[in-house]
Amino acid sequence: MEKKIALLPGDGIGKEVMDGAVEILKAIEEHYYHRFHFQYGMIGGAAIDEMNSPLPQETLQMCRESDAVLLGSVGGPKWDKNPSHLRPEKGLLALRKELDLYANLRPVETVESLLDSSPLKREYVEGVDFMIVRELTGGLYFGKPSERNVKNGEHTVVDTLFYKRDEMERIIERAFQLAQDRKKKVTSVDKANVLESSRMWREVAEEVAMKFPDVELQHMLVDHAAMALIHNPKQFDVIVTENMFGDILSDEASMLTGSLGMLPSASLSATGLHLYEPVHGSAPDIAGEDKANPVAMILSTAMMLRHSFKMEEEAEAIENAVKHVLDSGKRTADLTRKGEKPFSTSELVEEIKAAL
Amino acid sequence: MEKKIALLPGDGIGKEVMDGAVEILKAIEEHYYHRFHFQYGMIGGAAIDEMNSPLPQETLQMCRESDAVLLGSVGGPKWDKNPSHLRPEKGLLALRKELDLYANLRPVETVESLLDSSPLKREYVEGVDFMIVRELTGGLYFGKPSERNVKNGEHTVVDTLFYKRDEMERIIERAFQLAQDRKKKVTSVDKANVLESSRMWREVAEEVAMKFPDVELQHMLVDHAAMALIHNPKQFDVIVTENMFGDILSDEASMLTGSLGMLPSASLSATGLHLYEPVHGSAPDIAGEDKANPVAMILSTAMMLRHSFKMEEEAEAIENAVKHVLDSGKRTADLTRKGEKPFSTSELVEEIKAAL
Ligand SMILES: CC(C)[C@H](C(=O)O)[C@@H](O)C(=O)O
Ligand SMILES: CC(C)[C@H](C(=O)O)[C@@H](O)C(=O)O
Repeated sequence: MEKKIALLPGDGIGKEVMDGAVEILKAIEEHYYHRFHFQYGMIGGAAIDEMNSPLPQETLQMCRESDAVLLGSVGGPKWDKNPSHLRPEKGLLALRKELDLYANLRPVETVESLLDSSPLKREYVEGVDFMIVRELTGGLYFGKPSERNVKNGEHTVVDTLFYKRDEMERIIERAFQLAQDRKKKVTSVDKANVLESSRMWREVAEEVAMKFPDVELQHMLVDHAAMALIHNPKQFDVIVTENMFGDILSDEASMLTGSLGMLPSASLSATGLHLYEPVHGSAPDIAGEDKANPVAMILSTAMMLRHSFKMEEEAEAIENAVKHVLDSGKRTADLTRKGEKPFSTSELVEEIKAAL
Repeated sequence: MEKKIALLPGDGIGKEVMDGAVEILKAIEEHYYHRFHFQYGMIGGAAIDEMNSPLPQETLQMCRESDAVLLGSVGGPKWDKNPSHLRPEKGLLALRKELDLYANLRPVETVESLLDSSPLKREYVEGVDFMIVRELTGGLYFGKPSERNVKNGEHTVVDTLFYKRDEMERIIERAFQLAQDRKKKVTSVDKANVLESSRMWREVAEEVAMKFPDVELQHMLVDHAAMALIHNPKQFDVIVTENMFGDILSDEASMLTGSLGMLPSASLSATGLHLYEPVHGSAPDIAGEDKANPVAMILSTAMMLRHSFKMEEEAEAIENAVKHVLDSGKRTADLTRKGEKPFSTSELVEEIKAAL
């Protein structure tokens, strides 16, 4: 097959892990006789520095003309004091909105050989395997007004949690579809005892559930979910929730696996053009040191092969190679224990390539 | 001393743990020659059933005429389908707002003898001792509009995250004051890379910090905080954050101690009339079974003695008695391990009383 892939390394370790992903994709190209056309674009802080915009028009255009988008990570202290339209994150948020990437899939699976790196006791995390489905283009992230006001000398500020009913419906439906191919259970997370938007969310979840009689629906309050993820994570199959709750809970859940450096994600649209990125951030503290864990980025490319290109075999080959390397004790610094020598980013990529 | 205490047991296990608290307070009365006048009021589901209001005027009035308020818990599936003004939680939220209980203090301290009950590995939670200071009368909980709309056949819903600058200032100041008497570090949690309210929050935090040169200020994004609470909780001293983030993070943090049944909280106003309640909910699944852990409620009364009545010695006596009982292996069902026989609520209360 022939595919156009837009590569947006972004900031910090985004560049390093993207290099790793490209290495792996080139190996896949060769083994499986595909042809990948890579095109690089700027986003985030790098784009602000060079083009004075966190999402230049060229980048957006290039993504639109591609079959899939791979993203590294954006952000860093360098741009922290910038005005809000010139912040790296604005580039990512604008891209999500422009491409209508409303369904963010974040699988959380613990790896047997890494259980020792988890802060949680083995019996709590062994066999954990769930998927967080996060709404990605609505809620507090995009609602208007989001502004400051002064009235009679009183300074106030407002952000807006806004949703269309249809937006809830499509993401919850997506979650049920995913659950059908898994353990047939959806946990819908909200704050229905306080928020009107959550009460609508709950209603929509019940409605959607009627169309999927083979899938069990459970409601859970977000504060309770934050506990349950720790004391009983094995109960979950598919968790579906709105944008901000999803942001918080998925980062929390990443800790079950021992490192944020392990978790891939897919951001899906209705159009067929999807984006794939690691859950981790740009980690400015270790950027440029060839230390970052490339696994999340590499597993994101596997998700791309599976979801965007229907290359199931190739995706599994990558996933198995990663598992093989980790099982044999080879790890980057985020996962090594005292006394162990960590592999560098590029060394680990080489190992994964060799294992393919 | 002579003090008027308003008792609001509320729903579910609220009643049982409140009985325990009263037992302990009576013992304190005797040992230390105080006089406590208890007055019972209705709130939540119980009040809806009897008086068709989650916060009857009588209850509010009674609280206003008291020196402190003790609350059990509110809510339960019985009222889950009620319209929003007839939900149990509305009673608690209205009480917080009416009494202007803006500062919710939630101490998180692990107990050596209970470390085995924590889902986290011992080395992560041993010695954890921090305080979450949650803003309690603003943000998404109270912002208007909070409503549904239909326009051209499109159904939408909105909730509003609203803050006055002054509301941020007073809670952040409170956090710094608390930090001065502790390890002199404040972690301010926000989502400044997305929310305008968080950007104002961060500015206010920096301003307040200038008045406390001896206290260190650290900013942390809420998603990162959700991770850090698990992989490095010992770094924290005082965490300050807005209402919804505080709700989620404090429930998450409660897991470090092994059970939500351990954690007390104080909700402080500027007027001097404060409220004390356990962090846990009404646990309808075990209500009426004399199974609930009374420790959170009893430690909440200790907080009341300390903060509202300046009875430091009495507060410590309770805390030591609780510690003594737990150290000797006596526990309710939420904390026992396989094969151990759990103590009932009333048995544990008796033990704590005896240890006083
Ligand atoms: C960078 C930031 C805006 C982003 C988000 O909050 O969505 C990130 O935390 C994520 O989870 O992808
Ligand atoms: C009962 C509910 C409204 C409440 C809240 O969200 O504040 C509870 O979860 C709490 O944390 O005290």
